[in-house]
Amino acid sequence: MPSDGQPGILLGSSLPLNSQEGQPEKRTRVTFKVLYCGVCHSDLHMVKNDWGTSTYPLVPGHEIVGVVKEVGSKVQKFKVGDKVGVGCIIGACDSCDNCSNNLENYCKEMVLTYSDKYYDGTTTYGGYSDIMVANEHYVVLIPDQLSLEACAPLLCAGITVYSPLRFYELDKPGMQLGVVGLGGLGHVAVKFATAMGVKVTVISTSPKKKQEALEHLGAHSFLVSSDQDQMQAAQGTLDGIIDTVSAVHPLLPLIGLLKSHGKLIMVGAPEKPLELPVFPLIMGRKIVGGSAIGGMKETQEMIDFAAKHNISAEIEVIPIDYVNTAMERLVKADVRYRFVIDIGNTLNSNC
Amino acid sequence: MPSDGQPGILLGSSLPLNSQEGQPEKRTRVTFKVLYCGVCHSDLHMVKNDWGTSTYPLVPGHEIVGVVKEVGSKVQKFKVGDKVGVGCIIGACDSCDNCSNNLENYCKEMVLTYSDKYYDGTTTYGGYSDIMVANEHYVVLIPDQLSLEACAPLLCAGITVYSPLRFYELDKPGMQLGVVGLGGLGHVAVKFATAMGVKVTVISTSPKKKQEALEHLGAHSFLVSSDQDQMQAAQGTLDGIIDTVSAVHPLLPLIGLLKSHGKLIMVGAPEKPLELPVFPLIMGRKIVGGSAIGGMKETQEMIDFAAKHNISAEIEVIPIDYVNTAMERLVKADVRYRFVIDIGNTLNSNC
Repeated sequence: MPSDGQPGILLGSSLPLNSQEGQPEKRTRVTFKVLYCGVCHSDLHMVKNDWGTSTYPLVPGHEIVGVVKEVGSKVQKFKVGDKVGVGCIIGACDSCDNCSNNLENYCKEMVLTYSDKYYDGTTTYGGYSDIMVANEHYVVLIPDQLSLEACAPLLCAGITVYSPLRFYELDKPGMQLGVVGLGGLGHVAVKFATAMGVKVTVISTSPKKKQEALEHLGAHSFLVSSDQDQMQAAQGTLDGIIDTVSAVHPLLPLIGLLKSHGKLIMVGAPEKPLELPVFPLIMGRKIVGGSAIGGMKETQEMIDFAAKHNISAEIEVIPIDYVNTAMERLVKADVRYRFVIDIGNTLNSNC
Repeated sequence: MPSDGQPGILLGSSLPLNSQEGQPEKRTRVTFKVLYCGVCHSDLHMVKNDWGTSTYPLVPGHEIVGVVKEVGSKVQKFKVGDKVGVGCIIGACDSCDNCSNNLENYCKEMVLTYSDKYYDGTTTYGGYSDIMVANEHYVVLIPDQLSLEACAPLLCAGITVYSPLRFYELDKPGMQLGVVGLGGLGHVAVKFATAMGVKVTVISTSPKKKQEALEHLGAHSFLVSSDQDQMQAAQGTLDGIIDTVSAVHPLLPLIGLLKSHGKLIMVGAPEKPLELPVFPLIMGRKIVGGSAIGGMKETQEMIDFAAKHNISAEIEVIPIDYVNTAMERLVKADVRYRFVIDIGNTLNSNC
């Protein structure tokens, strides 16, 4: 197979191959054998076209790790045999203000890893697949000390929580951080923040998660969001909150937990608008902000930080033929905390 | 009359005087003859007890300017004859983190200039009055080059918009700023921002304000918020927005006007929660923030900046016996842009 094939294509399938040999961009492409791919909740939305943006045939997966098989002639950062990963994006305009500031994730021309249009008009395909092809700029190097399968979810869930911790300056040792929701995003938020020296309070609807949050994940305290007394006692104690919940939920109790000048950062996207009480924002000069994944430079920084601090996701490894069942369990939040597909050992291919 | 009387009391009235002579705090008090007092929209709410916090008898007014008549023995910043002003607050705890950072306005023990409890338990009274007494820390010096009557509204409206321009770093020359609502707050926001070198777009429901905004106040452009074509054409063009509207209004169109990483800052406080669409916040790493007046150090800085740049409010000076009519007109937004009561010439007193 050519090393410079179509980005993200499920090779060995009946999908058309693009073969513009010799184009400059092809010379910067990295081809890697996919070994593991995380199952993100957004994969479920995309499969079902919940957001109206899906293009079929659709190959999901944007938490992709594997081993480099071939590199284009101009590739500088990678060599055959390297462990690498691709996250949510595989392209951007490379010329706007955001791209110039290593924020490809906010570029208006950003190309998603799957179910999007690549530069040449072809559809992109994700990591529930055996081979991945991407421009080297959108590939990150996975340090040897990280478990490949357990670091796959960091490429989406990890960077989604790491980036706002940095950007909103909620990463200072001794700070008090709330993490709302203890799922795929929330549990890695706890790990990254505690590794930064931040004191983490998990805020959850589920009291039964308390023991695991405190004893296993390293959180410092735990609030049951429906417990009025607990919530009242914690008013005005947090410097910031990372809110990972994508269901509609009240913001007022969370804003109340913040100190003056505190920051409530949304990384989960409820489909309907939330109610925003303005008076408490004004009286404490508080903010509600958003954040979406991260740029490629920061994604590599996040992976390197994870390697240094031995951070990975809590996962349940599944074979490829279990993926539909996994998605049914995902709907019921029946996973701790991320499914990861063992592509390398369970997907038959011609490669 | 004693120089160290009760803060904010309407002297000559039947209200009780507090006379704890010799207490340390009294020695730092400034007594000034009130010459002008602005009519803030919040005065109307307080008179009517709209927020449920009013204490009667109530003397409104927190945009107060005048001339110093007496100073306590320890007063360092002021002397008899100085032109001075008092804004929304006359006390705070002086020991919390906010007070230590010159942010008395976010202190939980903050004492409002009227209808609040002073340290000694007495009620505070505002500037629709002939004499004002306040601790020197809460008094600002008015430079000679400022018109007393036209700078009175700066003590509330001015600092309310100046502080977020500074804190949220929307004060850089060449930046693109939106100002929503062209009333008491909005019109001084335009003046301060343009003086900082910021390019201002006024966003208003009222097309008839366009000419004045552009030709008289110095705005660079004008958007009619109900004009879909205008709003669509301006998508993604603003670094920040100061939203002065206190009625319930949609945030989505405003968030859409922001560039990536843009900031929508609320300084008007609608009584009901607003609808916050989270997805646009996330996809552009945008924030919605609040801001409330400013600390005393920054209030003095704002007044000095206004003097340097010849900024004052557009006002309609009224006699004290017109104040009820003025409030009726305020309900109808029938003022450009602030009523200021000529206390010195129209309020009879025994002083």
